[in-house]
Amino acid sequence: MQTVELIRKKRDGKELSTEEIRHLVQGYSEGKIPDYQMSAWAMAVFFQGMTSRERADLTMEMVHSGDVVKLDSIQGVKVDKHSTGGVGDTTTLVLGPLVAAAGVPVAKLSGRGLGHTGGTIDKLESFAGFSTSLTTDAFVNQVNQLGIAVMGQTADLTPADKQLYGLRDVTATVDSIPLIASSIMSKKVAAGADGIVLDVKTGKGAFMKDEEHAINLAQAMVEIGSNLGRTTVAIISDMEQPLGFAVGNALEVKEAIDTLKGVGPEDLTEICLTLGAHMVVIGGKADSAEGARRILEEKIADGSALAKFREFVEAQGGDQRAIDDPSHLTQADHLIEVTAPSSGTVATLEAEEIGICAMMLGAGRETKDDEIDYAVGIVLKKKVGDRVEEGEVLAVLHANDQSKVGEVQARFLQAVTISDKLAVAPRLIKALVTEQGVETL
Amino acid sequence: MQTVELIRKKRDGKELSTEEIRHLVQGYSEGKIPDYQMSAWAMAVFFQGMTSRERADLTMEMVHSGDVVKLDSIQGVKVDKHSTGGVGDTTTLVLGPLVAAAGVPVAKLSGRGLGHTGGTIDKLESFAGFSTSLTTDAFVNQVNQLGIAVMGQTADLTPADKQLYGLRDVTATVDSIPLIASSIMSKKVAAGADGIVLDVKTGKGAFMKDEEHAINLAQAMVEIGSNLGRTTVAIISDMEQPLGFAVGNALEVKEAIDTLKGVGPEDLTEICLTLGAHMVVIGGKADSAEGARRILEEKIADGSALAKFREFVEAQGGDQRAIDDPSHLTQADHLIEVTAPSSGTVATLEAEEIGICAMMLGAGRETKDDEIDYAVGIVLKKKVGDRVEEGEVLAVLHANDQSKVGEVQARFLQAVTISDKLAVAPRLIKALVTEQGVETL
Repeated sequence: MQTVELIRKKRDGKELSTEEIRHLVQGYSEGKIPDYQMSAWAMAVFFQGMTSRERADLTMEMVHSGDVVKLDSIQGVKVDKHSTGGVGDTTTLVLGPLVAAAGVPVAKLSGRGLGHTGGTIDKLESFAGFSTSLTTDAFVNQVNQLGIAVMGQTADLTPADKQLYGLRDVTATVDSIPLIASSIMSKKVAAGADGIVLDVKTGKGAFMKDEEHAINLAQAMVEIGSNLGRTTVAIISDMEQPLGFAVGNALEVKEAIDTLKGVGPEDLTEICLTLGAHMVVIGGKADSAEGARRILEEKIADGSALAKFREFVEAQGGDQRAIDDPSHLTQADHLIEVTAPSSGTVATLEAEEIGICAMMLGAGRETKDDEIDYAVGIVLKKKVGDRVEEGEVLAVLHANDQSKVGEVQARFLQAVTISDKLAVAPRLIKALVTEQGVETL
Repeated sequence: MQTVELIRKKRDGKELSTEEIRHLVQGYSEGKIPDYQMSAWAMAVFFQGMTSRERADLTMEMVHSGDVVKLDSIQGVKVDKHSTGGVGDTTTLVLGPLVAAAGVPVAKLSGRGLGHTGGTIDKLESFAGFSTSLTTDAFVNQVNQLGIAVMGQTADLTPADKQLYGLRDVTATVDSIPLIASSIMSKKVAAGADGIVLDVKTGKGAFMKDEEHAINLAQAMVEIGSNLGRTTVAIISDMEQPLGFAVGNALEVKEAIDTLKGVGPEDLTEICLTLGAHMVVIGGKADSAEGARRILEEKIADGSALAKFREFVEAQGGDQRAIDDPSHLTQADHLIEVTAPSSGTVATLEAEEIGICAMMLGAGRETKDDEIDYAVGIVLKKKVGDRVEEGEVLAVLHANDQSKVGEVQARFLQAVTISDKLAVAPRLIKALVTEQGVETL
């Protein structure tokens, strides 16, 4: 098989066969196909797209390029959740114990990742003593006994995807829907998911800046899931402003605890109930999203979701006292208020910029060698649509290193618009995408 | 300047600035920009094209990537001719002495090249003793004294173009009109041309399979020439069947001599007079193509074109006796006839396939290390539109190695269609493209 002929075929808008996609991914993975052919192919895909069959094939070839996690010895339907990334997104911490309390097994492999705040593992390590270094046996046993476990990712999942992503990043071929969709889905399938619930963010703080593209991406992923026998559902949610109030690691853990207690931010609670309901339905524990939602609301109300979180933290060696008393979580030395320069209504709170402010305080990693400060971050006091008076507190910066506070304050204020007109928060959940189609909400 | 941003800009259909094109070509040429970024950019160009300004800039950047031949010390307007390549194309051998006889200086740098037959240098070396290893001084002096010289290309012309072409060849980005046009024009400009006459071939035996694409390519080149102050004219000519009768090196030399004597094939003569007339006009030796053509016809009729060829061959050490007596050219040992399997009219003679037959006999190079046999090749006895009887000779194979003759005969017959319907030769010269526009002929 001649690689140049496959590039030409895609360039001319034709469909590649399963064998041809295998040739490309395997050849690239094995170093037989050079970067310059793969980047030309990726650019051809940018312009010509991929058929439904090609996307499923690409996904499976990337899955087969590395290790595949076998979760067969865990009872029940393993439903994974993925978010396309946003600012202050604490849903994973809430959803894990919540759906586990409803009987859906949560067997989560997680990484640290780069970003404005740490990944799920970093957030959990805000509990003193918490460890994700489990053996696969211990991991499986814990899920079977407790319903939930989080393990640091040690296996070499989808190396071909990592390699291709690195190439796309420097050749302007990242923003191609078939390539993004296959990349995300391959990671979930390799991690052993039977079903997948996706939270596709849209807005200035998200990778997908507009709703139409977000829906296209969601449809592409749902279709891949369907073709690969993994029931997949996606919601499109707003990321114009940060989700919840907290942006930081320990700060988000505290917010997750509040949400599991039933006193969390309204938007975070809503998104967790929506995503969780679909996980419960796919997991076979309810017949409808409405019924599933009622189950989850009950698990919060009767304290069993919070109890599950406590058991989980304890099982993995974390200091569970922090669940009742947040002072056991690591705390920043300095709390600095950012106040409103004028009166009016908060019209915008640019998520991306606020994320960068948290990162400047030390909450996230820019390169993989950066150290994270779990204590620092930002807690918003006002969100879009809220009335604010001049001098009133907009947010509190939690800092250890005071040298950057002035710069962060200034940047934060740049990210806020206070208007004398009425402003309303954007609709949080914009659409639901299932195999049956798109339902705009 | 971030290379990935330039790829994205082109991908999104925007125009790159002169500095941005310089960054790409210089960076690639100096090894600072990797192949995988250049191939992604080339694929983006395939889909988005380039503006007139971008094409001129790309051409000049490729010119500046290497040596530029200075022909200032040669008196007169140096007009170069370029053909996009075909089978049995002997025009260069005829045109050189013909326009030199009309007073237009011919200062030609030539290569050996790959292809069905050798390049101009190989053909000229069919004259025993002929040498193209001239110093630049000797080359310039010969043009000033005799009006014509051919020098082997020693200078490093347009290395960035060679590098990019090699990459395009393996990434399915060859057939992009702006890239082809810039590539061709950069070589002509670097070789010192003041004006350029182009013969863009179309048909099965040509790179451009249909007339529309050929016209687009011709327009792109004429426009680049105009933007760079090099008057450029293009004709679109047929390459469904080979040009002339001979396909081979010494065989084409003999045909060129016949044409300079006024007894050459009609199609070869016509194309030489058409191209030559435009060269004479651009060279300032006639006011109109019609007037120029009459001058050239006279130079053939009065023997001065042939005399110029003789002087030229002698000046470069070749055995000029071959001009009057072709037995002084190298001859093949075996002449094998290919006869018609049925009676009718010759409907097709696939140029590409016949070229491959000549190459199989040893007339051309597949890789740059292959040795050419100057003596071998094919002489057609019938062309499209000719009546043929069963058993009549269609062509004569000139072979030294008899082992491949059977295979070549069979392949040749596959390339011929004999029809019981009337067939006519396709129109030879289809269009003329100048700065003023396209004139369909």
